[in-house]
Amino acid sequence: MCIQDTLKRQANRLFFIYLCVNFSMEVKSKKASESLIQMTELVLPNDTNVFGNLMGGRLMYWMDIAAALSAQKHANAPVVTASVDNISFEAPIKLGNAVYIHAKVTRAFTSSMEVHMEVWGEDLKNQHKYKSNEAYYTFVALNAEGKAAPVPQLTPETEKEQRLYEGAIRRRQLRLILGGKMKPNDAAELKALFVNQS
Amino acid sequence: MCIQDTLKRQANRLFFIYLCVNFSMEVKSKKASESLIQMTELVLPNDTNVFGNLMGGRLMYWMDIAAALSAQKHANAPVVTASVDNISFEAPIKLGNAVYIHAKVTRAFTSSMEVHMEVWGEDLKNQHKYKSNEAYYTFVALNAEGKAAPVPQLTPETEKEQRLYEGAIRRRQLRLILGGKMKPNDAAELKALFVNQS
Amino acid sequence: MCIQDTLKRQANRLFFIYLCVNFSMEVKSKKASESLIQMTELVLPNDTNVFGNLMGGRLMYWMDIAAALSAQKHANAPVVTASVDNISFEAPIKLGNAVYIHAKVTRAFTSSMEVHMEVWGEDLKNQHKYKSNEAYYTFVALNAEGKAAPVPQLTPETEKEQRLYEGAIRRRQLRLILGGKMKPNDAAELKALFVNQS
Amino acid sequence: MCIQDTLKRQANRLFFIYLCVNFSMEVKSKKASESLIQMTELVLPNDTNVFGNLMGGRLMYWMDIAAALSAQKHANAPVVTASVDNISFEAPIKLGNAVYIHAKVTRAFTSSMEVHMEVWGEDLKNQHKYKSNEAYYTFVALNAEGKAAPVPQLTPETEKEQRLYEGAIRRRQLRLILGGKMKPNDAAELKALFVNQS
Amino acid sequence: MCIQDTLKRQANRLFFIYLCVNFSMEVKSKKASESLIQMTELVLPNDTNVFGNLMGGRLMYWMDIAAALSAQKHANAPVVTASVDNISFEAPIKLGNAVYIHAKVTRAFTSSMEVHMEVWGEDLKNQHKYKSNEAYYTFVALNAEGKAAPVPQLTPETEKEQRLYEGAIRRRQLRLILGGKMKPNDAAELKALFVNQS
Amino acid sequence: MCIQDTLKRQANRLFFIYLCVNFSMEVKSKKASESLIQMTELVLPNDTNVFGNLMGGRLMYWMDIAAALSAQKHANAPVVTASVDNISFEAPIKLGNAVYIHAKVTRAFTSSMEVHMEVWGEDLKNQHKYKSNEAYYTFVALNAEGKAAPVPQLTPETEKEQRLYEGAIRRRQLRLILGGKMKPNDAAELKALFVNQS
Repeated sequence: MCIQDTLKRQANRLFFIYLCVNFSMEVKSKKASESLIQMTELVLPNDTNVFGNLMGGRLMYWMDIAAALSAQKHANAPVVTASVDNISFEAPIKLGNAVYIHAKVTRAFTSSMEVHMEVWGEDLKNQHKYKSNEAYYTFVALNAEGKAAPVPQLTPETEKEQRLYEGAIRRRQLRLILGGKMKPNDAAELKALFVNQS
Repeated sequence: MCIQDTLKRQANRLFFIYLCVNFSMEVKSKKASESLIQMTELVLPNDTNVFGNLMGGRLMYWMDIAAALSAQKHANAPVVTASVDNISFEAPIKLGNAVYIHAKVTRAFTSSMEVHMEVWGEDLKNQHKYKSNEAYYTFVALNAEGKAAPVPQLTPETEKEQRLYEGAIRRRQLRLILGGKMKPNDAAELKALFVNQS
Repeated sequence: MCIQDTLKRQANRLFFIYLCVNFSMEVKSKKASESLIQMTELVLPNDTNVFGNLMGGRLMYWMDIAAALSAQKHANAPVVTASVDNISFEAPIKLGNAVYIHAKVTRAFTSSMEVHMEVWGEDLKNQHKYKSNEAYYTFVALNAEGKAAPVPQLTPETEKEQRLYEGAIRRRQLRLILGGKMKPNDAAELKALFVNQS
Repeated sequence: MCIQDTLKRQANRLFFIYLCVNFSMEVKSKKASESLIQMTELVLPNDTNVFGNLMGGRLMYWMDIAAALSAQKHANAPVVTASVDNISFEAPIKLGNAVYIHAKVTRAFTSSMEVHMEVWGEDLKNQHKYKSNEAYYTFVALNAEGKAAPVPQLTPETEKEQRLYEGAIRRRQLRLILGGKMKPNDAAELKALFVNQS
Repeated sequence: MCIQDTLKRQANRLFFIYLCVNFSMEVKSKKASESLIQMTELVLPNDTNVFGNLMGGRLMYWMDIAAALSAQKHANAPVVTASVDNISFEAPIKLGNAVYIHAKVTRAFTSSMEVHMEVWGEDLKNQHKYKSNEAYYTFVALNAEGKAAPVPQLTPETEKEQRLYEGAIRRRQLRLILGGKMKPNDAAELKALFVNQS
Repeated sequence: MCIQDTLKRQANRLFFIYLCVNFSMEVKSKKASESLIQMTELVLPNDTNVFGNLMGGRLMYWMDIAAALSAQKHANAPVVTASVDNISFEAPIKLGNAVYIHAKVTRAFTSSMEVHMEVWGEDLKNQHKYKSNEAYYTFVALNAEGKAAPVPQLTPETEKEQRLYEGAIRRRQLRLILGGKMKPNDAAELKALFVNQS
């Protein structure tokens, strides 16, 4: 952490703060892979609807826990769910099947983090593994007083991590527009999707 | 259902189809208000994070059940969660507080329905009721074989129901684009949001 | 609250107490309708017995939470369950059906409140809604030290609320007799039911 | 069961039926002690209210399971909860304490059984065991088609079992009156409580 | 507890402490039967695997609670699970059956206790009760600071309690060897099982 | 599977069947790594004892599910828990910490499989990850009729997998002795531990 207090009385304070911030940024940057959480669950009777398929709400509950643990691994601080992006449920997961959730932070902002998840089901008897859905959850790190706390930067390494890192800006703009906190016209990256193709 | 097949060879076919559609619409159209579900839950210790606030995943689980019941009231058939739109969690709901979820179908498509939900928390001791979040979940009605089944049309009545009914088209386009099933350029209503404001 | 202690030495004490009680009743009286809680639940596999019907104990658990929330809305204080009146389970509620519980305070005593509940099941597919049972739960409001705390008076408005308000006295006598805290002979209103009909 | 069919063509049929009924009653009578169920539970965080005390609804859920098992031991058939008598919660049971529920059938009617329960809490650290409440639940035995099925008679043995057996008639009359299925004036045993003491 | 404080100013303090320790040991010895816990559970849908049988993990969860309560009855202190001995699951317990767990402390060491459990299932309809398994769990008593706390000695009374008391030494040696805390050669009682039979 | 049908008309059929059986055994052997299950859970309030630590029984429940999924991945058939080896709980896992369970089959016998598990806790805030315990659970694969079904052989690859594979014989002997199904003297490998060191 940055030892600002001992620097207060220094003459060339601005220079020190510059160094300090730089130093803390270097120290605090963590790899995407460090935040990986692999969760496995078994679909039990109470998790299913009348068709014997996993209920969407139960899956979103598990995903929230997997993603929160991933965000905590990155932030080294408690986190709360800030938002959930559009989720589309493709293949239903059957009673008795395994559910695999892989969660990894894609990008860190000041005190928030976007977590990407991939979910598969597996019929263990027939060795049939199938993709169920993908999702993005966003979390905010909090300090002991429950106020937003700064989080380390994230360094993507693989090509996939790099792609998710870059897309995080557009998804963030969409979230802000949908949450009424940004005007569509100010979302440059997102707007390009619609306008440039005209 | 409309017995189109036996009418195919009729001379005045268009007239019959007109009658038939009218008849089926009268029979099958239901009011938005008929699908209202009011759920109330109490936040218990196991529903909370380390700050004593309701976990996002637990709330999404309750919302999934409230919305599924609302969609079933409209469809009179079992339903499965197809997708969940972007949710933003505003005010945290505290341990021991009440959670109120109001769910109502906004619009019905061939076999899918969009359900709108509003969520409030209430600190009953201090009589403080606060909005937590809003959300849209989409459900598909299934028949006994688990195949998509047709659902009644929905008739909005109040001004709010009318507004939600009209917005449903744009949200559907966004869902299709985000799900990779529609190109941004084909989403006329949604595109207008970005282009017209330039 | 009424500041009786400072009035003790006053000459015209009765007059003050009259004013004081009136004042506190105006301030503290709340309408029955303000305490309405509408709970909706879905019957899941683990809630059912071998016949696929909702277990009585699971329903009583949900009713306890609905009624406690209703009592807290009236008291604006935490409450504990003091007693449960005779409940008769009429129509079994099936797996996958919706359960609706409407809870409302019928009458407030010094620090206790009687809550009336009506419970329905609904087979959403067949649009068949049926009454399952009615019940009265009694709660006591507690202060921060866990001691009984005074609660506002209740003002019934509708004819039904008025009827429930009046019956609350007889049900209270029955509770006291069954709990060994009142002799049958002292329960004037209740005794009339047996004697007058001879 | 009584083998009536083979007796149908007998001349002295009435006499045989008399023997047969007697025989079946002897065979089917079971001791009260055979239906004893002793349940022990630990109060966990999610079972408690804001005061850290066991919620009434959670206790009624456990009691329903204990009593249902007791009734099944007597009936040797699946059972459903028919009614619950007035319950008064005396001493609150604390988080981390043990809960002991003793359930025993008090009397069997045609196809229903009344089960008596006593509930204690225990603070194991301080060796403090305290009575929490007593209750009567009534169950109906069902056959494979879900119709009411005959149950064996019950033979009380101890003085306490005898007392509970005799009181069962009065409690049954009260249940029928409260359920609107008997007029107060027809409940001879119950009425005596009020009239004779005048 | 030993009333050391009032003895502090005594001249012959050592002698008093000797008496005191002796006295406290006599006081603190408790009978095996005092620690008996009888737990009864009902197998619900969510407790079962695809064959409709109770899952081993769910049974071990119930056994842990039964055994912990038994150890707490003996220690009059909170306890934590230290180890679980080899468990062999013989007869599967079916959905809807009753589960009976009897737990009793077999022997107390300095601050740990071994608890023996016997588990039965019962098909209540067919009056078929069957042994499912036996197990030994070991617990450590903790004081308010979470440090190991001394527990009373245990006095076996019946022949079975005596046998379990004596076997506890051998099982303890096996636990220590399996936990890597004792060499096989130092486990005299256990070694005899293998060597003497050569 | 063995392609017997195309071989039926061959002259030297016995020779082919010999090859075929050999071939099928080779085909059915699976790598240890194919059975890896990585489960991650979050310790919630209801999972903890009065010290805020994960209860042993709750952990054994999660381990049972992780190990059962691992055994199913190897067997491609449903499995039931046959036995659990001695488990020693070292470091308590705190409320709010993550629990990681890694499960992998160590060796397959005719229709049973031994699964090895390692369990860690992690305090995500302080980046402190600690080993909690190791365990061996044994499962039996069942066919559709609920009878024991043959499972593929297991091929260990890494040094650790090889070591666990070899130790499986000794642990099996200990299980059989403890289950009263083998005499200590017949357990050659296990006996050597005691005798050779004399």
